[in-house]
Amino acid sequence: MTIKSISSRDNPLYKELKHLAASSQARRKAGRTLLDGVHLCEAYLEKVGLPPLCIVGETAMLNGEVIVIVQQCSGTATQCIVLPDALFHALSQVEHGVDLLFVIDTPDLPTPPRLTQSAVLLDKVQDPGNFGSIVRSAAAAGIKQVFCSAGTTFAWSPKVMRAGMGAHFLLEIFEGVDLSDLLGRSDIPVIATSSHAEKQLYELDLRQPVAWLFGHEGQGVTDDLLARATHRISIPHLGDIESLNVAASSAVCFFEQVRQQTSR
Amino acid sequence: MTIKSISSRDNPLYKELKHLAASSQARRKAGRTLLDGVHLCEAYLEKVGLPPLCIVGETAMLNGEVIVIVQQCSGTATQCIVLPDALFHALSQVEHGVDLLFVIDTPDLPTPPRLTQSAVLLDKVQDPGNFGSIVRSAAAAGIKQVFCSAGTTFAWSPKVMRAGMGAHFLLEIFEGVDLSDLLGRSDIPVIATSSHAEKQLYELDLRQPVAWLFGHEGQGVTDDLLARATHRISIPHLGDIESLNVAASSAVCFFEQVRQQTSR
Repeated sequence: MTIKSISSRDNPLYKELKHLAASSQARRKAGRTLLDGVHLCEAYLEKVGLPPLCIVGETAMLNGEVIVIVQQCSGTATQCIVLPDALFHALSQVEHGVDLLFVIDTPDLPTPPRLTQSAVLLDKVQDPGNFGSIVRSAAAAGIKQVFCSAGTTFAWSPKVMRAGMGAHFLLEIFEGVDLSDLLGRSDIPVIATSSHAEKQLYELDLRQPVAWLFGHEGQGVTDDLLARATHRISIPHLGDIESLNVAASSAVCFFEQVRQQTSR
Repeated sequence: MTIKSISSRDNPLYKELKHLAASSQARRKAGRTLLDGVHLCEAYLEKVGLPPLCIVGETAMLNGEVIVIVQQCSGTATQCIVLPDALFHALSQVEHGVDLLFVIDTPDLPTPPRLTQSAVLLDKVQDPGNFGSIVRSAAAAGIKQVFCSAGTTFAWSPKVMRAGMGAHFLLEIFEGVDLSDLLGRSDIPVIATSSHAEKQLYELDLRQPVAWLFGHEGQGVTDDLLARATHRISIPHLGDIESLNVAASSAVCFFEQVRQQTSR
């Protein structure tokens, strides 16, 4: 194994990593992000391939799962680096995890010209945990494309990726998309959820591809986008609650589609 | 309106409030917690009644919605207190909200002897956002009882209540419950989710009351509790994802029950 050891906080590569870890803007600019922990790194190796950089804390070099991962990376184009635990911890937001990080290039995919397969459209979803949970549910439901408006939280932040649990590596994620424009270029029905809609989720025929549109946690889908959707639906409630959390509501929608698609 | 103004950080009541705001242990010990913001306070007034204390930031006293709430509270057993904005902000975890807080007594309900109506059983669910989203979905699905094991996050923390969006006030929440023991005292089927279960959610007849059992975010439902459940089910996946987020998975289950209960 060829593993480089860095022990100084002033090392230029370490300083670059710290900048990436601390600043969402730096991650966007560099087109790189950090994957935290064994689970995400294993998922990346399995679904995508080798990362440009693999960073390990000194103590974690004794961990069996980490050793396997480092062995997979070393001797390849991947640069493996060991850091003293204190230096590693300054890079990671995970408190009680195994000290392993991949630095990966974030995909920058050109938006497809038309909506042709089941997809999720996210307009200004703010919370990284919600975003991660939504893509995790979408991937589990067999959906392959996610389109995000400009005001949506960054898809590749470490927090979103931890919540996504590897779903990112199964999906095509398009960011900064003009959703209003995209809705005019759809070959499939676009379904928007709204607590005020009269039509209910369970009235829809979902055995065909559809695009699901979800909005901001507080304000929901904007009136403009609602008007452009093919269907506006609500999830029927039996209790006196105004709305569901957006990640919960998307899971209900995606799996109603799975239920219809898998039932005889 | 009789409103007391506090301007000193050394005021004994203010010090008590700060302690409540900062320490989960203090909240548990006092049997009191803080409700943050207009939405939660309105929900409390509507569903429960008047709080013992209503706290407002100076600037928020000019807000129309806040004025209505303070008027409802004043002249009653509720003590209304105005704080300089800086003192208020030291009590609240909300960054861009309207400066309004209720201090409320947390219910301490005796656990019912038997499970007889649709319920949620939470074993060691850790994340406040997940817990809040689960109770929000449960209340929307018409479920009325929530039973939490000793290792589950505190149901009445400000973070859980923000995520619950008022669902707490529609539910009976029992904490520190011995779930293993409770499963022996159930008059209704207990359904546990497990990604390894062969039986699928959609094979169940849910037109009767059932108890839903969910476990820790990482480890899932313990083997002991799984073995004691009436049914072990999985949610079918069409994509290569191991599991859903626990709040997403609970929403899928609750609303499959709603679908079956509301369909002819």
